[in-house]
Amino acid sequence: MATPVPPYEPPYYAVIFTSVRHDDDHEAYAAAAKRMLALATEQPGFLGVDSARGADGLGITVSYWRDRASIEAWRTHAAHLPIQETGRRRWYDMFSVHIAQVERSYRYPPPAP
Amino acid sequence: MATPVPPYEPPYYAVIFTSVRHDDDHEAYAAAAKRMLALATEQPGFLGVDSARGADGLGITVSYWRDRASIEAWRTHAAHLPIQETGRRRWYDMFSVHIAQVERSYRYPPPAP
Repeated sequence: MATPVPPYEPPYYAVIFTSVRHDDDHEAYAAAAKRMLALATEQPGFLGVDSARGADGLGITVSYWRDRASIEAWRTHAAHLPIQETGRRRWYDMFSVHIAQVERSYRYPPPAP
Repeated sequence: MATPVPPYEPPYYAVIFTSVRHDDDHEAYAAAAKRMLALATEQPGFLGVDSARGADGLGITVSYWRDRASIEAWRTHAAHLPIQETGRRRWYDMFSVHIAQVERSYRYPPPAP
Protein backbone atom coordinates (compact mmCIF):
# COMPACT_ATOMS: atom_id res chain seq x y z
CA MET A 1 0.00 0.00 0.00
CA ALA A 2 1.32 3.41 -0.95
CA THR A 3 1.61 5.93 1.88
CA PRO A 4 1.64 9.72 1.50
CA VAL A 5 4.75 11.49 2.77
CA PRO A 6 4.18 12.98 6.22
CA PRO A 7 4.04 16.70 6.88
CA TYR A 8 7.54 18.06 7.45
CA GLU A 9 8.49 21.00 9.65
CA PRO A 10 7.68 24.23 7.73
CA PRO A 11 9.07 26.06 5.98
CA TYR A 12 10.06 23.58 3.28
CA TYR A 13 9.56 23.41 -0.47
CA ALA A 14 7.36 21.42 -2.85
CA VAL A 15 8.04 20.92 -6.55
CA ILE A 16 4.77 20.02 -8.25
CA PHE A 17 5.39 18.35 -11.60
CA THR A 18 2.21 17.63 -13.59
CA SER A 19 2.60 15.89 -16.91
CA VAL A 20 1.00 14.10 -19.82
CA ARG A 21 3.08 11.30 -21.28
CA HIS A 22 3.27 9.90 -24.77
CA ASP A 23 1.88 6.43 -24.92
CA ASP A 24 5.08 4.76 -26.06
CA ASP A 25 8.59 3.96 -24.83
CA HIS A 26 7.33 2.71 -21.47
CA GLU A 27 10.38 0.64 -20.56
CA ALA A 28 13.00 3.31 -21.14
CA TYR A 29 10.84 5.83 -19.31
CA ALA A 30 10.22 3.56 -16.32
CA ALA A 31 13.92 2.72 -16.04
CA ALA A 32 14.94 6.39 -16.16
CA ALA A 33 12.23 7.38 -13.68
CA LYS A 34 13.40 4.72 -11.24
CA ARG A 35 17.03 5.76 -11.63
CA MET A 36 16.23 9.46 -11.15
CA LEU A 37 14.11 8.72 -8.09
CA ALA A 38 16.93 6.75 -6.46
CA LEU A 39 19.39 9.54 -7.25
CA ALA A 40 17.04 12.28 -6.01
CA THR A 41 16.65 10.62 -2.63
CA GLU A 42 20.43 10.86 -2.16
CA GLN A 43 20.58 14.62 -2.76
CA PRO A 44 21.17 17.06 0.11
CA GLY A 45 17.89 18.65 1.16
CA PHE A 46 15.65 15.96 -0.31
CA LEU A 47 12.76 15.16 2.05
CA GLY A 48 10.35 12.89 0.17
CA VAL A 49 8.21 12.34 -2.92
CA ASP A 50 4.69 11.23 -3.85
CA SER A 51 3.64 10.24 -7.34
CA ALA A 52 0.42 9.18 -9.07
CA ARG A 53 -0.62 8.70 -12.69
CA GLY A 54 -4.30 8.25 -13.49
CA ALA A 55 -6.00 6.23 -16.20
CA ASP A 56 -6.52 9.44 -18.21
CA GLY A 57 -2.74 9.81 -18.60
CA LEU A 58 -2.29 12.78 -16.25
CA GLY A 59 0.56 12.28 -13.79
CA ILE A 60 1.42 14.32 -10.70
CA THR A 61 4.74 13.99 -8.89
CA VAL A 62 5.37 16.18 -5.86
CA SER A 63 8.87 16.18 -4.41
CA TYR A 64 9.63 17.91 -1.12
CA TRP A 65 12.88 19.73 -0.34
CA ARG A 66 14.39 21.65 2.55
CA ASP A 67 15.07 24.83 0.52
CA ARG A 68 15.30 26.40 -2.93
CA ALA A 69 19.06 25.81 -3.11
CA SER A 70 18.64 22.04 -2.89
CA ILE A 71 15.99 22.13 -5.66
CA GLU A 72 18.28 24.15 -7.90
CA ALA A 73 21.20 21.80 -7.22
CA TRP A 74 19.09 18.81 -8.26
CA ARG A 75 17.69 20.57 -11.33
CA THR A 76 21.21 21.22 -12.58
CA HIS A 77 22.75 17.90 -11.42
CA ALA A 78 25.02 16.43 -14.14
CA ALA A 79 23.07 13.15 -14.24
CA HIS A 80 19.67 14.85 -14.20
CA LEU A 81 20.12 17.41 -16.99
CA PRO A 82 20.33 14.97 -19.93
CA ILE A 83 17.28 13.06 -18.65
CA GLN A 84 15.28 16.29 -18.52
CA GLU A 85 16.24 16.88 -22.14
CA THR A 86 15.18 13.34 -23.09
CA GLY A 87 11.92 13.89 -21.24
CA ARG A 88 11.10 16.98 -23.29
CA ARG A 89 12.13 15.32 -26.54
CA ARG A 90 10.66 11.83 -26.15
CA TRP A 91 8.41 11.26 -23.17
CA TYR A 92 6.22 14.23 -22.37
CA ASP A 93 3.50 15.82 -24.45
CA MET A 94 3.39 18.62 -21.93
CA PHE A 95 4.11 19.40 -18.33
CA SER A 96 3.74 22.17 -15.77
CA VAL A 97 6.07 22.84 -12.85
CA HIS A 98 5.15 24.85 -9.76
CA ILE A 99 7.81 25.55 -7.11
CA ALA A 100 6.24 26.48 -3.81
CA GLN A 101 7.17 27.16 -0.19
CA VAL A 102 5.06 25.10 2.20
CA GLU A 103 3.74 27.25 5.02
CA ARG A 104 1.46 24.78 6.75
CA SER A 105 0.83 21.05 6.67
CA TYR A 106 -1.09 18.40 8.55
CA ARG A 107 -2.25 14.85 8.22
CA TYR A 108 -5.02 12.49 9.06
CA PRO A 109 -5.05 10.53 11.24
CA PRO A 110 -3.05 12.94 13.39
CA PRO A 111 0.23 11.59 14.79
CA ALA A 112 -0.02 9.71 18.07
CA PRO A 113 0.61 12.07 21.01
CA MET B 1 -6.95 13.89 -22.87
CA ALA B 2 -6.28 15.46 -19.50
CA THR B 3 -4.28 18.69 -19.53
CA PRO B 4 -2.25 20.10 -16.63
CA VAL B 5 -3.31 23.51 -15.38
CA PRO B 6 -1.06 26.24 -16.78
CA PRO B 7 1.35 28.26 -14.64
CA TYR B 8 -0.43 31.23 -13.09
CA GLU B 9 1.12 34.58 -12.24
CA PRO B 10 3.06 34.18 -8.93
CA PRO B 11 2.53 34.54 -6.11
CA TYR B 12 -0.39 32.15 -5.79
CA TYR B 13 -1.13 29.16 -3.57
CA ALA B 14 -1.23 25.39 -4.00
CA VAL B 15 -3.07 22.98 -1.72
CA ILE B 16 -1.51 19.53 -2.13
CA PHE B 17 -3.87 16.82 -0.91
CA THR B 18 -2.37 13.32 -0.98
CA SER B 19 -4.60 10.46 0.10
CA VAL B 20 -5.18 6.74 0.32
CA ARG B 21 -8.80 5.70 -0.07
CA HIS B 22 -10.70 2.77 1.30
CA ASP B 23 -11.64 0.35 -1.43
CA ASP B 24 -15.41 0.63 -0.93
CA ASP B 25 -18.22 3.16 -1.34
CA HIS B 26 -17.02 4.25 -4.78
CA GLU B 27 -20.30 5.71 -5.99
CA ALA B 28 -20.97 7.96 -3.01
CA TYR B 29 -17.36 9.10 -3.05
CA ALA B 30 -17.35 9.85 -6.78
CA ALA B 31 -20.61 11.79 -6.53
CA ALA B 32 -19.35 13.87 -3.60
CA ALA B 33 -16.00 14.51 -5.30
CA LYS B 34 -17.74 15.71 -8.45
CA ARG B 35 -20.07 17.96 -6.46
CA MET B 36 -17.21 19.46 -4.41
CA LEU B 37 -15.14 20.06 -7.54
CA ALA B 38 -18.00 21.93 -9.20
CA LEU B 39 -18.53 24.01 -6.06
CA ALA B 40 -14.81 24.72 -5.61
CA THR B 41 -14.52 26.13 -9.13
CA GLU B 42 -17.17 28.72 -8.21
CA GLN B 43 -15.30 30.02 -5.15
CA PRO B 44 -13.58 33.42 -5.16
CA GLY B 45 -9.85 32.99 -5.66
CA PHE B 46 -10.06 29.50 -7.20
CA LEU B 47 -7.62 29.16 -10.10
CA GLY B 48 -7.57 25.49 -11.13
CA VAL B 49 -7.08 21.88 -10.07
CA ASP B 50 -5.24 18.74 -11.21
CA SER B 51 -5.96 15.29 -9.88
CA ALA B 52 -4.55 11.78 -10.38
CA ARG B 53 -5.01 8.46 -8.61
CA GLY B 54 -2.65 5.61 -9.43
CA ALA B 55 -3.21 1.87 -9.52
CA ASP B 56 -1.55 1.55 -6.08
CA GLY B 57 -4.37 3.61 -4.51
CA LEU B 58 -2.39 6.78 -3.87
CA GLY B 59 -4.19 9.91 -5.05
CA ILE B 60 -2.84 13.44 -5.43
CA THR B 61 -5.10 16.45 -5.93
CA VAL B 62 -3.50 19.89 -6.23
CA SER B 63 -5.82 22.89 -6.22
CA TYR B 64 -4.52 26.37 -6.97
CA TRP B 65 -5.76 29.55 -5.31
CA ARG B 66 -5.04 33.25 -5.44
CA ASP B 67 -4.32 33.60 -1.71
CA ARG B 68 -4.55 32.00 1.74
CA ALA B 69 -7.85 33.76 2.50
CA SER B 70 -9.62 32.03 -0.40
CA ILE B 71 -8.29 28.64 0.75
CA GLU B 72 -9.53 29.25 4.27
CA ALA B 73 -12.96 30.38 2.99
CA TRP B 74 -13.30 27.16 0.99
CA ARG B 75 -12.06 24.98 3.88
CA THR B 76 -14.78 26.39 6.13
CA HIS B 77 -17.53 26.62 3.47
CA ALA B 78 -20.86 25.38 4.86
CA ALA B 79 -21.28 22.79 2.09
CA HIS B 80 -17.65 21.62 2.33
CA LEU B 81 -17.31 21.03 6.08
CA PRO B 82 -19.68 18.04 6.37
CA ILE B 83 -18.06 16.36 3.35
CA GLN B 84 -14.63 16.72 4.96
CA GLU B 85 -16.04 14.99 8.04
CA THR B 86 -17.51 12.19 5.89
CA GLY B 87 -14.15 11.88 4.15
CA ARG B 88 -12.32 11.31 7.44
CA ARG B 89 -14.97 8.91 8.71
CA ARG B 90 -15.71 6.85 5.61
CA TRP B 91 -13.46 7.38 2.61
CA TYR B 92 -9.85 7.98 3.56
CA ASP B 93 -7.41 5.67 5.29
CA MET B 94 -5.03 8.59 5.54
CA PHE B 95 -4.15 11.85 3.91
CA SER B 96 -1.58 14.64 4.05
CA VAL B 97 -2.20 18.29 3.23
CA HIS B 98 0.52 20.80 2.33
CA ILE B 99 -0.41 24.47 1.82
CA ALA B 100 2.25 26.29 -0.15
CA GLN B 101 2.92 29.63 -1.80
CA VAL B 102 4.04 29.21 -5.41
CA GLU B 103 7.09 31.36 -6.13
CA ARG B 104 7.91 30.19 -9.64
CA SER B 105 6.24 28.16 -12.35
CA TYR B 106 6.73 27.23 -15.99
CA ARG B 107 5.53 24.80 -18.57
CA TYR B 108 6.59 22.78 -21.55
CA PRO B 109 6.08 23.43 -24.34
CA PRO B 110 6.48 27.12 -23.53
CA PRO B 111 3.57 29.37 -24.48
CA ALA B 112 3.59 30.71 -28.02
CA PRO B 113 5.24 34.16 -28.14
